[in-house]
Amino acid sequence: MPQDFPQPMDAAVIPRFAGIPSFMRLPIFSNPADVQIALLGIPWDGGTTNRAGARHGPREVRNQSSMMRKVHHVSHIAPYDLVRVGDLGDAPVNPIDLLDSLKRIEGFYREVHEAGTVPLSVGGDHLVTLPIFRAIARDRPVGMVHFDAHSDTNDRYFGDNLYTHGTPFRRAIEEGLLDPKRTVQIGIRGSIYSAEDEDFAKDCGIRVIHMEEFADIGVAATIAEARRIVGDEPTYITFDVDVLDPAFAPGTGTPEIGGITTLQAQQLIRGLQGLNLVGADVVEVSPPFDVGGATALVGATMMFELLCILADSIKRRS
Amino acid sequence: MPQDFPQPMDAAVIPRFAGIPSFMRLPIFSNPADVQIALLGIPWDGGTTNRAGARHGPREVRNQSSMMRKVHHVSHIAPYDLVRVGDLGDAPVNPIDLLDSLKRIEGFYREVHEAGTVPLSVGGDHLVTLPIFRAIARDRPVGMVHFDAHSDTNDRYFGDNLYTHGTPFRRAIEEGLLDPKRTVQIGIRGSIYSAEDEDFAKDCGIRVIHMEEFADIGVAATIAEARRIVGDEPTYITFDVDVLDPAFAPGTGTPEIGGITTLQAQQLIRGLQGLNLVGADVVEVSPPFDVGGATALVGATMMFELLCILADSIKRRS
Amino acid sequence: MPQDFPQPMDAAVIPRFAGIPSFMRLPIFSNPADVQIALLGIPWDGGTTNRAGARHGPREVRNQSSMMRKVHHVSHIAPYDLVRVGDLGDAPVNPIDLLDSLKRIEGFYREVHEAGTVPLSVGGDHLVTLPIFRAIARDRPVGMVHFDAHSDTNDRYFGDNLYTHGTPFRRAIEEGLLDPKRTVQIGIRGSIYSAEDEDFAKDCGIRVIHMEEFADIGVAATIAEARRIVGDEPTYITFDVDVLDPAFAPGTGTPEIGGITTLQAQQLIRGLQGLNLVGADVVEVSPPFDVGGATALVGATMMFELLCILADSIKRRS
Amino acid sequence: MPQDFPQPMDAAVIPRFAGIPSFMRLPIFSNPADVQIALLGIPWDGGTTNRAGARHGPREVRNQSSMMRKVHHVSHIAPYDLVRVGDLGDAPVNPIDLLDSLKRIEGFYREVHEAGTVPLSVGGDHLVTLPIFRAIARDRPVGMVHFDAHSDTNDRYFGDNLYTHGTPFRRAIEEGLLDPKRTVQIGIRGSIYSAEDEDFAKDCGIRVIHMEEFADIGVAATIAEARRIVGDEPTYITFDVDVLDPAFAPGTGTPEIGGITTLQAQQLIRGLQGLNLVGADVVEVSPPFDVGGATALVGATMMFELLCILADSIKRRS
Amino acid sequence: MPQDFPQPMDAAVIPRFAGIPSFMRLPIFSNPADVQIALLGIPWDGGTTNRAGARHGPREVRNQSSMMRKVHHVSHIAPYDLVRVGDLGDAPVNPIDLLDSLKRIEGFYREVHEAGTVPLSVGGDHLVTLPIFRAIARDRPVGMVHFDAHSDTNDRYFGDNLYTHGTPFRRAIEEGLLDPKRTVQIGIRGSIYSAEDEDFAKDCGIRVIHMEEFADIGVAATIAEARRIVGDEPTYITFDVDVLDPAFAPGTGTPEIGGITTLQAQQLIRGLQGLNLVGADVVEVSPPFDVGGATALVGATMMFELLCILADSIKRRS
Amino acid sequence: MPQDFPQPMDAAVIPRFAGIPSFMRLPIFSNPADVQIALLGIPWDGGTTNRAGARHGPREVRNQSSMMRKVHHVSHIAPYDLVRVGDLGDAPVNPIDLLDSLKRIEGFYREVHEAGTVPLSVGGDHLVTLPIFRAIARDRPVGMVHFDAHSDTNDRYFGDNLYTHGTPFRRAIEEGLLDPKRTVQIGIRGSIYSAEDEDFAKDCGIRVIHMEEFADIGVAATIAEARRIVGDEPTYITFDVDVLDPAFAPGTGTPEIGGITTLQAQQLIRGLQGLNLVGADVVEVSPPFDVGGATALVGATMMFELLCILADSIKRRS
Repeated sequence: MPQDFPQPMDAAVIPRFAGIPSFMRLPIFSNPADVQIALLGIPWDGGTTNRAGARHGPREVRNQSSMMRKVHHVSHIAPYDLVRVGDLGDAPVNPIDLLDSLKRIEGFYREVHEAGTVPLSVGGDHLVTLPIFRAIARDRPVGMVHFDAHSDTNDRYFGDNLYTHGTPFRRAIEEGLLDPKRTVQIGIRGSIYSAEDEDFAKDCGIRVIHMEEFADIGVAATIAEARRIVGDEPTYITFDVDVLDPAFAPGTGTPEIGGITTLQAQQLIRGLQGLNLVGADVVEVSPPFDVGGATALVGATMMFELLCILADSIKRRS
Repeated sequence: MPQDFPQPMDAAVIPRFAGIPSFMRLPIFSNPADVQIALLGIPWDGGTTNRAGARHGPREVRNQSSMMRKVHHVSHIAPYDLVRVGDLGDAPVNPIDLLDSLKRIEGFYREVHEAGTVPLSVGGDHLVTLPIFRAIARDRPVGMVHFDAHSDTNDRYFGDNLYTHGTPFRRAIEEGLLDPKRTVQIGIRGSIYSAEDEDFAKDCGIRVIHMEEFADIGVAATIAEARRIVGDEPTYITFDVDVLDPAFAPGTGTPEIGGITTLQAQQLIRGLQGLNLVGADVVEVSPPFDVGGATALVGATMMFELLCILADSIKRRS
Repeated sequence: MPQDFPQPMDAAVIPRFAGIPSFMRLPIFSNPADVQIALLGIPWDGGTTNRAGARHGPREVRNQSSMMRKVHHVSHIAPYDLVRVGDLGDAPVNPIDLLDSLKRIEGFYREVHEAGTVPLSVGGDHLVTLPIFRAIARDRPVGMVHFDAHSDTNDRYFGDNLYTHGTPFRRAIEEGLLDPKRTVQIGIRGSIYSAEDEDFAKDCGIRVIHMEEFADIGVAATIAEARRIVGDEPTYITFDVDVLDPAFAPGTGTPEIGGITTLQAQQLIRGLQGLNLVGADVVEVSPPFDVGGATALVGATMMFELLCILADSIKRRS
Repeated sequence: MPQDFPQPMDAAVIPRFAGIPSFMRLPIFSNPADVQIALLGIPWDGGTTNRAGARHGPREVRNQSSMMRKVHHVSHIAPYDLVRVGDLGDAPVNPIDLLDSLKRIEGFYREVHEAGTVPLSVGGDHLVTLPIFRAIARDRPVGMVHFDAHSDTNDRYFGDNLYTHGTPFRRAIEEGLLDPKRTVQIGIRGSIYSAEDEDFAKDCGIRVIHMEEFADIGVAATIAEARRIVGDEPTYITFDVDVLDPAFAPGTGTPEIGGITTLQAQQLIRGLQGLNLVGADVVEVSPPFDVGGATALVGATMMFELLCILADSIKRRS
Repeated sequence: MPQDFPQPMDAAVIPRFAGIPSFMRLPIFSNPADVQIALLGIPWDGGTTNRAGARHGPREVRNQSSMMRKVHHVSHIAPYDLVRVGDLGDAPVNPIDLLDSLKRIEGFYREVHEAGTVPLSVGGDHLVTLPIFRAIARDRPVGMVHFDAHSDTNDRYFGDNLYTHGTPFRRAIEEGLLDPKRTVQIGIRGSIYSAEDEDFAKDCGIRVIHMEEFADIGVAATIAEARRIVGDEPTYITFDVDVLDPAFAPGTGTPEIGGITTLQAQQLIRGLQGLNLVGADVVEVSPPFDVGGATALVGATMMFELLCILADSIKRRS
Repeated sequence: MPQDFPQPMDAAVIPRFAGIPSFMRLPIFSNPADVQIALLGIPWDGGTTNRAGARHGPREVRNQSSMMRKVHHVSHIAPYDLVRVGDLGDAPVNPIDLLDSLKRIEGFYREVHEAGTVPLSVGGDHLVTLPIFRAIARDRPVGMVHFDAHSDTNDRYFGDNLYTHGTPFRRAIEEGLLDPKRTVQIGIRGSIYSAEDEDFAKDCGIRVIHMEEFADIGVAATIAEARRIVGDEPTYITFDVDVLDPAFAPGTGTPEIGGITTLQAQQLIRGLQGLNLVGADVVEVSPPFDVGGATALVGATMMFELLCILADSIKRRS
């Protein structure tokens, strides 16, 4: 019965600034089987090629998530009444060893996945999505709605390094975890290394909606196109906060001016209600580069937006 | 004659950073009868349920108001040529006693009101509008154009506390100071405590234009709707800076992403020219959470926008 | 047996930035009887006469306390091997009602006290020490070593308000909770309201070691004098971070230049080892006025210093 | 041959945070004849009437320009393949003598101009554009596309001072360096000193597209109008970052709320491709008032946008 | 009679954050003859060779001076009971013309001096002391106790510029306004341009107590030496906040590590009680480079320290 | 002849804020043989177990080093007249591969060493000293004066990771690069993982002067002891900025309160003049955690202090 589902602390009883800051002020669980949606942190930025700091993302997003309330004001989804949601803590990581971290994260998510629990994660840099995919998309590739300023389908850095936050989706496609034909990237922009940068995405069939196309066609058409691409099959949503203009999300490692607004981001996520969702994440919140917690608040709010459509999706399936 | 009306210090003679920072660099008055519009501060945030700090709002808005010049560049209203305007200082407050503060503020505004002076105030948290109403709307309820991310019509907090910055307008309606049928709220958004949160406003007839409706119908239709609701009767404008997206106004206690822009806010206020205005305020500027004075500058500029239409309204009435 | 005492997460296994930030990375308990020393937050600043913000203190001190390790490098006290220590969460508070908050806090500490548990608390403004005393010093007054820039023995503010963060120790003495003859204040300084400000402390027998005397006699003599004053009877230590120079602790509501250094503060606390301690607190950490978490780190480190001598004192008694 | 044109350091080999921060990570030159486009700093703000700080602009824009890559993602212009581009260092200035600085800057630009090199400069306050014009527009007046919140055509300040950052374009017109009929100002807004403030611009034939008109007609119509005004003759583009809303560019001396977005700014510059360009600048980036480098990043990115259309224009002419 | 002397607003009635921020919350005067000590701002930094910003010093020192109370806690001097003290506003300045500013400032101080009023000023960069001397030391040179990291006796900058904040005291000596034999400089340190930098001071007989000597001989001996040098004749005290270590006063244009502490600074000023004082200033507080208002608070507190010994000196003379 | 030695830009000609920010405003060289002392950056923090950011250290130290002048004010050493000094840029690094970075750095320093050039480096985290030692101490182990809050002689982290910024000197001793009997550590403090933490240093003969001993014996005795330990043989100085109290150096990854002052640090370095120095470094400056550039300024100034005694040492040897 919903009434015994885990509930956030009530801000009209315990002020928002009080208490241990778990995600959404929810109870903390150690067994993934206790919840249907696990809120998880991946405090790791070892794949970052420029400004590190996203390792501190989960803690600050937890902190700012105290500002969230319980019911979505537009969709009226009340996620904590629909499904069991809880904070499952942070994935194990190794800040000085990239490959070891990928293994630790994958192992942790494998347990979550095997418990039948859907993960809603906060990074960490964007490379963290790769071990999540390795844990949840082994059996069949997932589709993906990908919000980002960058395609993250580069090949190598600093010589022969295959794993950075600029390469996860090329690797995921190569490993058969991500279906490029069911992948849509929204908000891509910024100067590029060479005119060939975008060939991989194009060649393997990813639908890229650059920022300029988005500005041109608008929110509704973008939603329609994204839904058309991913269809009814299992789909993952990854939200890199640098898809937002730095005015809205300054605290990130690779800001690109000329991005989308938070209102547009919210409208886009709301427009994905009803998809067959198997997980989601918010990545690249980098508190050392943030300003007054602005980006962590954006991260927490986008996490709530994602939680609502995830809860709705799970409820529909059950 | 206008030429002996109080005038701001001239920035082409005395640089903006020089001199004692009164509102708009105007002379300071102690007798409300000396001015037609009194610029006032209410340095108090005792009604704040989460992040205090708006007590420091008046001082920082005064500081940033040194950036204002004398003539509105769109309407060409020159407020200091139309009416006598001055800085009347701050209302008396008690930072450790909520009910005592409400009384002190009310008493102070009663004097202003009895002098026939129209108050343009800077909070302070949003609860300060309640004692202003108690002073100026005793005789008959006012109408209100209310810019805010939050309806501020909740009932109680922390047990039985009736007075917080989340409750002023429920109290004002209950006390017969505010006419809900002549009240329009613009920009309301953000997750809510429960699906019933909005029932009070709906039941008593407040016209709520949520952020999503505003984004849909645009500035002009919103202005038209607001004018239709409040009509020609005495009307008050209250501008909570959290109606703005946090990118534009980070320094506030309860930021909600996905808000309006400053340009939209300015256009909305300009669209209210010609109403029968009896007062206005800018609230919830919270300097400890501000970033580089950005929100205080927004507060000062919105205050100037309000001053122009207030001066115009008074001039028309006289 | 010590080996099953609660232990902090190991930073050589789980990086400091990972995991839910409880005090010292310790397990979280809800029953005070489970621990001998309870680490507690009191997120409340309703007694603040000027710059509020200490309500956010417990959360940020918890955050920075991730930097603490397990053994004191000078005394070699290993507190988690000596006694059971845990995070007991935050006291209930009401941010808009002072008297209600005092009651809630007192009730919470009464439970802790009745479980035989010693509280080590983080404020909050300095008024929080009063309800702690009401809970733990009912039976007989305690002695106190009081680190502060201010005597906090004023009488009234804003008319007849008896309870502010400038008055707790006058109230505690009047209520028979604090023995002024066994009270020593260290670091007092800063301009005063009137020459009579210090009469109360003097008249009731408090030993005041002003900053200037401290600078003159040094750390060792100050320790000796403090030990002489409080003797072997039950003693409480209260550490207001504004005793430190603002260069070391900028994030506080009433900074006074010319204060002590952190090294001196550490030496002073270490010099109190062996006292008969019944509790301690660190107050007035105000994150909105802090700079880069500096003051919260100081608060966490001073908390660890206090924890070591508290653990040692309890171990000796047992 | 393009392949031996100066190239930026490759961020996939040398991380962005490494190395001496020249503009765009390009080689540093001392002889203007070695490049076709010279990237230049003018670290001077002696014309600033309110908040100085733009003297630090060139250094921080250089710093943030490490984030730029090599190819424009929309136009696919690859500037370093089209023309020789290099960092030519900073113009000589005198921080305590305005007239001496104007002379030093003019002399420096004269050398650049005489080498046949096109300058792309970073200020500095907006007065720096005047000595640039004196160096490059002696022979015949240039046309100008001017992005700004302010017209900068005032006459005098503080008595009889003719040269401030509020007066450069009145002076340039008086000196025959700037053709007002081929001048368009975009984004002008903010309260004004008097209703006559805008008479000079109007009287001499400048086409002013106020912010309100821009919001009304949109990007495409603004581009068309700007192109119509300046035509095919030699044209200079000056980009004052305060044309942007302070949410996007907080670090500037005279912010005005209600400005354009970075996306709009980028679209506007892209729309000027194909003009007959003789130089460009980005001015009024003021690091002491910036927040987390946001405005310097905007400055660097707008500089890259300008570089692309400058390179294209030079290539077409050659 | 003292009881009608101007008094600061009482912080136990009107909270510190309320009200217009005049110096020390004192009444504002426009006629120097109304007070015996005039608190004055000189918002000007046109002599700054590197990082400007001290123009904003007076406003922020006024802001932080709300933290001051009424009686000195060590000397028990109650300045407002001894003499008439008031805020006389800011000197007129011209931010874009150095020589014009020197004239305006001198003229303003001449009026103060001719009214028989003693000035206690807040800069502004250190060049502001020169026009003060021109106004008050025309008749006979003054002696000076000079706290600073830099000797400020350089000759020329940027070619032939005689007036910068690095040259005021060479000019003052050349003009016969300052008696080098009655001048003592305390805290001088930091790398120098050449080994000859210190020759001028040495040759004309200034007693320089470098930081290293101060650290060696201590506060008491330094006070004794300073008193010996200036004797009983008219003496001016100038306090450049960069004499303090940047940990205590980060907000200044030319910080030098390894400086004195605020406690030492306070002890030094207190040790000058009884001198024959004709004025004092606190300079080089630069808010754009400050951190959380720390340096402005130091400036306000040092101003209060100076006010106490000035008031005492005037009282003794009268 | 000295007169053609590389010289910094003259700040009395080119203001400090102008020009490309190389170390000390010196010319940039690419061939180590061109200089006797190479100023080098190592922008890498891959060994950091908690808060990364030191990768940005070299750039910000370069930036702040513009504040340095040419002659030491106490020793009167004029380093640029004694030896050839230049900025040699940054070592190559790989931000996502620890072992690859150690190799790249070692290779780079091997070239410097083989050119007979003495390196003065800015990290980077403290692990960077290990590859420096591998390059310069292959032939025989060096002695070391080590300023730090932490011994950095731990063994392993996160399982079996041998290389972190907590382990370099254990590794260096194991590899025969560092002579523990000629090693002195100064300023060690802070809570420890276990009582055995310090056994390695003790067992292999390192002389550890804990903060408490330093506070007790003072600067002069500490210098004497350090000189006794290292003797006349080749010695390296490593200065971790966290040896300083966080009030003086907030911008570092692992701050520990209760540290030394900058004045003490300067005195200590000056006291090492005359040693047989073969290199030095300043590490752990972490700009993302810095406040207003304070720590980078400290880093630049300590670098100048080290440069002076290095230049003196080389001059004596030659």
